[in-house]
Amino acid sequence: MALRFTTAGESHGPGLTAVVEGLPAGLSLTPEEIDRDLARRQLGHGRGGRMKIEKDRAEVTAGLRHGRTLGSPVAMQVVNLDFANWEERMSPWPVEAEIEEVHLPRPGHADLAGVQKFGFTDVRNVLERASARETAARVACGALARAYLRALGVEVRSHVLQIGTVRTTERESLSPESFEGVDDSPVRCLDPEASAAMVDEIDNARRANESLGGVFEVIAFGCVPGLGSYVSWDERLDGRLGQAIMSIQAMKGVSIGDGFAVAGKVG
Amino acid sequence: MALRFTTAGESHGPGLTAVVEGLPAGLSLTPEEIDRDLARRQLGHGRGGRMKIEKDRAEVTAGLRHGRTLGSPVAMQVVNLDFANWEERMSPWPVEAEIEEVHLPRPGHADLAGVQKFGFTDVRNVLERASARETAARVACGALARAYLRALGVEVRSHVLQIGTVRTTERESLSPESFEGVDDSPVRCLDPEASAAMVDEIDNARRANESLGGVFEVIAFGCVPGLGSYVSWDERLDGRLGQAIMSIQAMKGVSIGDGFAVAGKVG
Amino acid sequence: MALRFTTAGESHGPGLTAVVEGLPAGLSLTPEEIDRDLARRQLGHGRGGRMKIEKDRAEVTAGLRHGRTLGSPVAMQVVNLDFANWEERMSPWPVEAEIEEVHLPRPGHADLAGVQKFGFTDVRNVLERASARETAARVACGALARAYLRALGVEVRSHVLQIGTVRTTERESLSPESFEGVDDSPVRCLDPEASAAMVDEIDNARRANESLGGVFEVIAFGCVPGLGSYVSWDERLDGRLGQAIMSIQAMKGVSIGDGFAVAGKVG
Amino acid sequence: MALRFTTAGESHGPGLTAVVEGLPAGLSLTPEEIDRDLARRQLGHGRGGRMKIEKDRAEVTAGLRHGRTLGSPVAMQVVNLDFANWEERMSPWPVEAEIEEVHLPRPGHADLAGVQKFGFTDVRNVLERASARETAARVACGALARAYLRALGVEVRSHVLQIGTVRTTERESLSPESFEGVDDSPVRCLDPEASAAMVDEIDNARRANESLGGVFEVIAFGCVPGLGSYVSWDERLDGRLGQAIMSIQAMKGVSIGDGFAVAGKVG
Repeated sequence: MALRFTTAGESHGPGLTAVVEGLPAGLSLTPEEIDRDLARRQLGHGRGGRMKIEKDRAEVTAGLRHGRTLGSPVAMQVVNLDFANWEERMSPWPVEAEIEEVHLPRPGHADLAGVQKFGFTDVRNVLERASARETAARVACGALARAYLRALGVEVRSHVLQIGTVRTTERESLSPESFEGVDDSPVRCLDPEASAAMVDEIDNARRANESLGGVFEVIAFGCVPGLGSYVSWDERLDGRLGQAIMSIQAMKGVSIGDGFAVAGKVG
Repeated sequence: MALRFTTAGESHGPGLTAVVEGLPAGLSLTPEEIDRDLARRQLGHGRGGRMKIEKDRAEVTAGLRHGRTLGSPVAMQVVNLDFANWEERMSPWPVEAEIEEVHLPRPGHADLAGVQKFGFTDVRNVLERASARETAARVACGALARAYLRALGVEVRSHVLQIGTVRTTERESLSPESFEGVDDSPVRCLDPEASAAMVDEIDNARRANESLGGVFEVIAFGCVPGLGSYVSWDERLDGRLGQAIMSIQAMKGVSIGDGFAVAGKVG
Repeated sequence: MALRFTTAGESHGPGLTAVVEGLPAGLSLTPEEIDRDLARRQLGHGRGGRMKIEKDRAEVTAGLRHGRTLGSPVAMQVVNLDFANWEERMSPWPVEAEIEEVHLPRPGHADLAGVQKFGFTDVRNVLERASARETAARVACGALARAYLRALGVEVRSHVLQIGTVRTTERESLSPESFEGVDDSPVRCLDPEASAAMVDEIDNARRANESLGGVFEVIAFGCVPGLGSYVSWDERLDGRLGQAIMSIQAMKGVSIGDGFAVAGKVG
Repeated sequence: MALRFTTAGESHGPGLTAVVEGLPAGLSLTPEEIDRDLARRQLGHGRGGRMKIEKDRAEVTAGLRHGRTLGSPVAMQVVNLDFANWEERMSPWPVEAEIEEVHLPRPGHADLAGVQKFGFTDVRNVLERASARETAARVACGALARAYLRALGVEVRSHVLQIGTVRTTERESLSPESFEGVDDSPVRCLDPEASAAMVDEIDNARRANESLGGVFEVIAFGCVPGLGSYVSWDERLDGRLGQAIMSIQAMKGVSIGDGFAVAGKVG
């Protein structure tokens, strides 16, 4: 069967659930490689305060036995360590207490569309799911996909190219080894000078109570030819990658290879 | 989006996970109506010993707030209350202990095909998922679907028509009320005499170390026209129901309306 | 990618379209093996008059080159040879003529549910698609699937077990060769005596202006283990087969192996 | 059911097939609005010679009656008017003639990956499907989607922002009316000066035997809130749009709203 994943969970609810179906049987996994990716998600200069209280861990409850996949769906739980402080507001079941509603939709989120779509008066009913917190479940799924790819000789790496107006100078050639120190940069940028400038720009933006956009690059090394297929539109790899990236909260664009840069070049 | 559900979990693993996507927002649910169906699954004369130790409960961890659905995926956990006794054999991660393998595939199960498909030497790697235990997760999903149908005025009822050679006499007309006492029958049969005869036949079979087949009927009262669609083969309601039933472990046949009975009748 | 098929077309429209995706590249096909199955669909004692006027042929317009699949979607057209007589009533585009509506829904069809679902006044808008004619497109798709299975050493055969009250005596052992003469029987029954009795019963029913139900058996010889999967409910082979069969017009039941027969047996 | 489409057909084969499922019943369509979009696809300065010989037309063969959708799948055929010149090379069935194979994969296409994936020696077996010709079938599907959107008050417009190094100056505000003359520009650019400069750049590139990239913008006016959904990753509208665009041959990037432009702005 095709690889597919399902996520569930609200930002301040009991926890996140992730299910990955279609992994082959016999794939070796360690808790470290899942939790490492969850920890990497929590890195980054100027992240929200919540990132500090959390130390996300994925508890595997299905599909794995003695460190090897069974070929059955792999289920993971990322417990909300802060749920005690949210139990009344986010209890699945009715509570005695009077719960204060949220009535201010956040700009740039699905909040307004969501309350209109579902007829809610409490914006919290939307923002709890339309939240970047959901990406923690995706990261756990991605760690399994990464282990699968590694078993096939494919290594995936990423780094930040731009934050605000600061852009790194393109690197001539990159190999998996080039990324060894990338997590030491508070903005996951390979260029120390650009990294420092990005940190400054983030600090300035924060003081102005603003936030910044950016650009990152993901590279798959050792990729085998023939992934995806040109025969049907929904099997095309570029389209699959496009959906995967654009379905992530706050993503506004994706390009492959030279992407937009090539538009201006004589090919 | 269409209603879809995903289950994960091994029979003696940490627990079962169920995710239901596509429920409308604002649907009222109670823990009782989910756990009642889980308890009904555990009823029945001559059930395996395990049924006695367990009292399954579904813990809702996502998609529900203060007793109402949020329109987001509803996630449920059915914890394995007996996991302590299986922790070494079924730990997701490597263990010190020497684990004894199972080498005898059960007849009438996916065990043999499973070890061939995935190249396992330990049949437990298959039987733990190819197990009727998985239906507990489906029952939890079904309880949500039932609540959705109820909100639309559709009531679903079921009863046993035959066990072994004992068959009930067809009831002329049935209404939802006809089923009030059905759970009092140890075999969920509406006919007290047939019910007693079924119990005897089960006891006899057990003494002979055999098991029995049977036939049950599911009726949806107040069904609205236009469910499913004739326009595309995979939208047809009969086909959807056929897959839903035939995908349940140990189901060997399904018929709709008079089904096979009509074959012999002059229509 | 998974094997999937799509059909389109109304019973008296310009024609039927069938698309099969997911066939491997390099599979050998002949027009004869597709048209032979289309012709077999048109066999049978007491079929409707239309069966006589038609000689269905599938024109392959995509996915095939010089007798071998390309790995791309295979598209087939089954032209309606009688369309000239239906052009005004079934033209895709507006016509001058006054078109008479059909207002009598057929019993046992989707007609009534269809007009309610889509808000039609003309039942023809439903009956043209909710028609057994659609199975011609499925048969063309099935011929490709059969060629694929044959390349894997799997042979599929079928025969009629019962029509009305006439049932054949079960054959002890069947092999692909046992079915050589089955198409010589006007009811595709392997038992000449039963075959004759079925023909009589059909003739009697016709005189009484009635129709009959029946039971047929499909056998796959040389089936490889591990088709489908127990790991996810929607991957289970029994469920997939159940949907495939129950989604065919007029199918009221399906069973696998001993199916319902086993219910009464001590297993 | 969800709206879905399927395409089939090779570039020089008998024709293209397109099937659109999930359109509501009763939607008005005209042949002109489908063929107009097919004709618009064939516009453009410096298009390949083939564009001149073809006048694509979509023949609707299913799902439409007297100018209104039936709720059943809509099937369309785009016949290859040049097939007579390709019959031997592209016949679905074996031919007498010796067919010359193509052994040179085109750069920037799926040719090389395709022959490796499917084990072909003749690159034609790939390039015939991995061809921009397939977009003619998508355009026909898109014309139906556009009619559906129009019935909901949504108008879709597009124009070219950049070709090679020539970029238009951003327009302050655009309305559907702003696009009235866009097809008069040989490069579908709203800015006459940029349009002329783009034509020059194309001509220069052609003389240098090169091709150029570009950027276009698609705008949906009157879009209703709540399309797609934030609740599940594969229901998110941005992801769906991302896949739709990136699955088109030669697309290298997609962005929504300000997209990449915003990365450098203090938000």
